[in-house]
Amino acid sequence: MNYRMISHVLGWVISFEGVCMLLPLLCAAIYGEQTIGLFISCALLCFIVGIPLTLIKSRKKNMFAKEGFVIVALSWIFLSIFGAMPFFLSKAIPSFIDALFETASGFTTTGASILTDVEALPKSLLFWRSFTHWIGGMGVIVFLVALLPLSGGDNLHLIRAESPGHSVGKLVPHVKTTAKILYTIYLGLTFVQIALLKLGGLDWFSSLTLTFGTAGTGGFSILNSGIASYSPYVQWVITIFMIIFGVDFTFYYCILMRRFKYALKMEEVRTYLCVIAVSVLLICLNIASQISNGWDNVRHSAFQVASVMTTTGYTTVDYDLWPQFSKMILLGLMFLGACAGSTGGGIKVSRLLVLAKSIIKEIRVLVHPKSTVKVKLNGRPLEHETLRGISVFFMAYCFVFVVVLLVISLDNLDFTTNFTAVAATLGNIGPGLSLVGPTGNFACYSFVSKLVLTLTMIVGRLEIFPILVLLSPKVWKR
Amino acid sequence: MNYRMISHVLGWVISFEGVCMLLPLLCAAIYGEQTIGLFISCALLCFIVGIPLTLIKSRKKNMFAKEGFVIVALSWIFLSIFGAMPFFLSKAIPSFIDALFETASGFTTTGASILTDVEALPKSLLFWRSFTHWIGGMGVIVFLVALLPLSGGDNLHLIRAESPGHSVGKLVPHVKTTAKILYTIYLGLTFVQIALLKLGGLDWFSSLTLTFGTAGTGGFSILNSGIASYSPYVQWVITIFMIIFGVDFTFYYCILMRRFKYALKMEEVRTYLCVIAVSVLLICLNIASQISNGWDNVRHSAFQVASVMTTTGYTTVDYDLWPQFSKMILLGLMFLGACAGSTGGGIKVSRLLVLAKSIIKEIRVLVHPKSTVKVKLNGRPLEHETLRGISVFFMAYCFVFVVVLLVISLDNLDFTTNFTAVAATLGNIGPGLSLVGPTGNFACYSFVSKLVLTLTMIVGRLEIFPILVLLSPKVWKR
Repeated sequence: MNYRMISHVLGWVISFEGVCMLLPLLCAAIYGEQTIGLFISCALLCFIVGIPLTLIKSRKKNMFAKEGFVIVALSWIFLSIFGAMPFFLSKAIPSFIDALFETASGFTTTGASILTDVEALPKSLLFWRSFTHWIGGMGVIVFLVALLPLSGGDNLHLIRAESPGHSVGKLVPHVKTTAKILYTIYLGLTFVQIALLKLGGLDWFSSLTLTFGTAGTGGFSILNSGIASYSPYVQWVITIFMIIFGVDFTFYYCILMRRFKYALKMEEVRTYLCVIAVSVLLICLNIASQISNGWDNVRHSAFQVASVMTTTGYTTVDYDLWPQFSKMILLGLMFLGACAGSTGGGIKVSRLLVLAKSIIKEIRVLVHPKSTVKVKLNGRPLEHETLRGISVFFMAYCFVFVVVLLVISLDNLDFTTNFTAVAATLGNIGPGLSLVGPTGNFACYSFVSKLVLTLTMIVGRLEIFPILVLLSPKVWKR
Repeated sequence: MNYRMISHVLGWVISFEGVCMLLPLLCAAIYGEQTIGLFISCALLCFIVGIPLTLIKSRKKNMFAKEGFVIVALSWIFLSIFGAMPFFLSKAIPSFIDALFETASGFTTTGASILTDVEALPKSLLFWRSFTHWIGGMGVIVFLVALLPLSGGDNLHLIRAESPGHSVGKLVPHVKTTAKILYTIYLGLTFVQIALLKLGGLDWFSSLTLTFGTAGTGGFSILNSGIASYSPYVQWVITIFMIIFGVDFTFYYCILMRRFKYALKMEEVRTYLCVIAVSVLLICLNIASQISNGWDNVRHSAFQVASVMTTTGYTTVDYDLWPQFSKMILLGLMFLGACAGSTGGGIKVSRLLVLAKSIIKEIRVLVHPKSTVKVKLNGRPLEHETLRGISVFFMAYCFVFVVVLLVISLDNLDFTTNFTAVAATLGNIGPGLSLVGPTGNFACYSFVSKLVLTLTMIVGRLEIFPILVLLSPKVWKR
């Protein structure tokens, strides 16, 4: 294990977080809030810890897979710890565990909250809270790789460990250029949404924070009522942009490169859009008796489906009051999640698509033992290693789910709350059902459970294995 | 598809069911019940339909895998339909769907009931209800293969499709002898339990029916209070025998053959016993505040753990009143299930053991990409095909689970009820939590849901694929 390299990259990550804190500092200055001093000291703390670490340099330039995992896992843990400082030191969130939960929820784009009154927070803290979504959405490491010769060598292992999806490819031969392209698309789409929200009559503060939450598929809102009190126009803009940010970014790259044919053939994107359409339709029919106005019905269904499937977690209605069937569709979407290569969480559409195809293949093999069908995606047969990776990921997801469910059930809350709390944190959605539903929050859990759920969010965001690798004693041998 | 062969075997299965009905007929005669005529007519119905079908013979003797699946799937569906007749015609269960649910629950050794007052049934019907557990436990086809040259050729495909577990092996070179050995062990253990219960002061009727429910890991009881009102001695005997019947029968064969070393090395059996011990311990600690007497505490914990893990479903207390942590352990055990090659259901210990090892292997490969570790069971490396089969089974289990959950949620019952109802039927346990908990039953569901859950029980008993094959249109091409 190359400890020097790990320290070096971690130093960059922590320093970067200090730079990120300059934005809420600016916000505090604009609104003349007393948090100016707070953000200055928090940023300084990051620099004091981070910059000396960046000076530690390793002679060996080549990074192995295990170092990639360890760096990414530790980065996200430290990001959450340092990011929690503004909440904790300002006493906006008096308990450090709570502040850590809230920050990890931000960076992992979960959007699960322990706050009962969001509107009581100063604007600059709300800005920081939403901004963590934006940073976490595309990934911190991806951002740093785009700008810096981070570890000195090739940084593919870092990108692989941080980016969601089973087949993190390079769009172009250079990792650095790939990272730049991804962030450019991300930034571009973000600007378009801010502009559209501004056109809808929102102020800059609301436009920015709501966009951060949408782009990162996060879900923190700045009002206690969530998105319910905004105009239908704003709700529709958010709905559409949630869907947009849930699409594999390779799709947009292909569009930009005018490779329309390839883009339109992407099976995952097509399945993703189909699932959204079918879910909206089913929920519309199911809740028709509760919401009499047809258009309201479509708007609320579309908003909630888009929000849950892209693992954003914004809400315009309390879907916990919907019939069980609609709630089960939403719960199913929590597991399904968005496309791989998007900012969304969950198991990912492509993985479950491949798993469904494996089951169909198995039936064929059982019927005709000599058949040699192969599981294909986008017309190309998948390699054995990829298939194994996907199925092991699915199992690991289930195993982690069961362990976390067991631990938090020690708090003796009801099954629906516990089950959906795990689904909502592991899948990085945000709200679940019952006590952690749209009108509830995670304040009902004990400190131990909150700490476990904090880790669960990071485990979910990094797709299980980086954290499991971190827990494996073999990794730490020199 | 060899339709003649399918008809021939189905004929034998239905006729066999007619023969089985002679036992409750005897019971009716002993207790002088009016159901004598009923059982005579039901048995005659089986013979009238079954015997002519046995006369259809195929010239081709060799059976393919798909025919094995189709025969077994259809056998279990017809068994349930004909087996429901006594309940339906006697008007003990006035609705046919309800009668079908109860019978499928019997044959699949689930033990889920729609009856609110069991004690109102005549003894002969209760006998038949429990006897279906015993027949279904080891399998109907296995029994017939032991006695008859069923399809004329080698019947391994039939045994494979009916027996639980990923690696249905032949204990000895001949399938027929293997089937005979299995049934001999089954019968032997059954006799021992009957004798022990009789020694505990129970009458013959109770001893027999309770043993049938234990041996088949079924769970139908003959009292509304379940097993709660029996003496601690009887409860301990049942606990121990539930655990015994949840062990892979290969273990007993090895013991009989004096291959002690091999038997003691069986990883699945060791894991199974460890899981039981740990679960009992954890639940004991968790419920200590509810049950003050230490020995009662151990007895109830052990009984419920053994009952749920072996997927029997007998209960001595209403575990729905236990703390959430204990309930989650039981829910986890519902998915885990008993050993492969036992009469129990669920995913099976060996499968989840192999899956857990695959995850550990994946972590190793991630840390050291060049490592060539292999997943082993009982010291032997598993073949790629076996591993793939196990993981695909796990996924298919989850997929079926989700689909059934979605369908039954249309009834708008609460999440805990629906979730555990699917877990309890797919895993062939019996009771779940909340409305379908130990004091509840499945009467709360609509006819559509009951029909779906009936199919779910059969899907679970036959381990998913035979029924999925049945639903595949390709199979039905000539």
